[in-house]
Amino acid sequence: MDNNKKPSLYTCASPALLNLYELKNSTVVIIDVLRATSTIANALYNGAKSVIPVDSVAECIRIGKQIDGITAGERDGQIAEGLAHGNSPTEYPRSFIEHKTLVLTTTNGTKLLHMALDRNAKTIITGSFPNLEAVCTYLIEKGQNVVLGCAAWKDKVNVEDMLFAGAVIHKVKKHFHISCDTSIIAEMLYDKGKKDLFGFMQKNHASHYLRLHNFGVDNDMKFCLTENISPVVPVYNEGKLESASI
Amino acid sequence: MDNNKKPSLYTCASPALLNLYELKNSTVVIIDVLRATSTIANALYNGAKSVIPVDSVAECIRIGKQIDGITAGERDGQIAEGLAHGNSPTEYPRSFIEHKTLVLTTTNGTKLLHMALDRNAKTIITGSFPNLEAVCTYLIEKGQNVVLGCAAWKDKVNVEDMLFAGAVIHKVKKHFHISCDTSIIAEMLYDKGKKDLFGFMQKNHASHYLRLHNFGVDNDMKFCLTENISPVVPVYNEGKLESASI
Repeated sequence: MDNNKKPSLYTCASPALLNLYELKNSTVVIIDVLRATSTIANALYNGAKSVIPVDSVAECIRIGKQIDGITAGERDGQIAEGLAHGNSPTEYPRSFIEHKTLVLTTTNGTKLLHMALDRNAKTIITGSFPNLEAVCTYLIEKGQNVVLGCAAWKDKVNVEDMLFAGAVIHKVKKHFHISCDTSIIAEMLYDKGKKDLFGFMQKNHASHYLRLHNFGVDNDMKFCLTENISPVVPVYNEGKLESASI
Repeated sequence: MDNNKKPSLYTCASPALLNLYELKNSTVVIIDVLRATSTIANALYNGAKSVIPVDSVAECIRIGKQIDGITAGERDGQIAEGLAHGNSPTEYPRSFIEHKTLVLTTTNGTKLLHMALDRNAKTIITGSFPNLEAVCTYLIEKGQNVVLGCAAWKDKVNVEDMLFAGAVIHKVKKHFHISCDTSIIAEMLYDKGKKDLFGFMQKNHASHYLRLHNFGVDNDMKFCLTENISPVVPVYNEGKLESASI
């Protein structure tokens, strides 16, 4: 295909830069590897009906009661007061989450998702290593322009979300026209880290590695950095993330 | 030295993220490799009295007349109407620029410099590959906290400014406490590109490489990506960049 006729792909390294990208004709991939979008992928893969992302604990409790959902979310590494579960993807095995609705409160990922919604993104999905290949297949088949949106950490660029953006680029680049320096940087980062993503985070003292390591959740990180263990595409529609049929 | 007693170093990938960093006790390095901060280093190295960075062509003309300075600046790759010279670092040999004042209008670099000024940065200097080593020596000797500020391109992260941030980190990291994912990413990028910076920009189709290549100024880019050919530290003081005594 002529390069200029291919759909475009951009990487946005922080929510604070999202206004620089055209979203109206794009699929926006919300990336919050540690741990929101990994947990979302795993809950849906294990049969959750849907995941409702909300931005506050109060809203999580309110909606949880209203729909009889599982409330989940952490603040500073602890289950937030009033909620039943945490942010760990491993808390949601099929035996527990199947046919249920997860109401999940996160900070960075949810904020970015709502920003993309406010800016009229055509399609919003979520991505992380557990659903890497599924996301790539979806993006190629959909054939829309793509913005890979890193949730970052309080607007500061982080390593793990850029790694995932790089992983997607590495796999889909033949199908897109990519003229975007952030994408070049992300792909290079993934190329450096791909052999051992957890070891890469650890060796380089990535800030979120240090934060979660101090909470004693190395196993969570290993899960979130493992490719293709939750092969599903969470698509946002009317307040809910649901598994796309692919 | 105990890691926690070392001064801190952060990398800010775009002017739109500058508000996330504490500048009051920091030296901010303005990085606009292609080509503003390369031109500034070279003009001062070749004996210019000072460089006055201004943000508009009109202001450039006004100040140029007022102080009998050399007006310079480009818009879309052409010398801007009403100005005498362009943004190319090679336009300012000693035979021409010595003892003169250069009034330079740029977009990305000047904007970032004024933002740092508005946020009360303790010290503002400019850096690019031609004065890499001089900047590193200055930062180590000064011993203040450091923010490496990438001018980027209309707020979008670019490869060449991140490469320079990575080069600085590579050389000074023992002297600073660095807990910053953008710095990890920048250093990794430099590590990938350091053997042949121009080739790296070319091979990866960096957006600014393509832009300037289309203007036919490959030689300018090669100059801007050559380490230590203009060993000087431009320090900002009362509207002017002057060479620091080091």
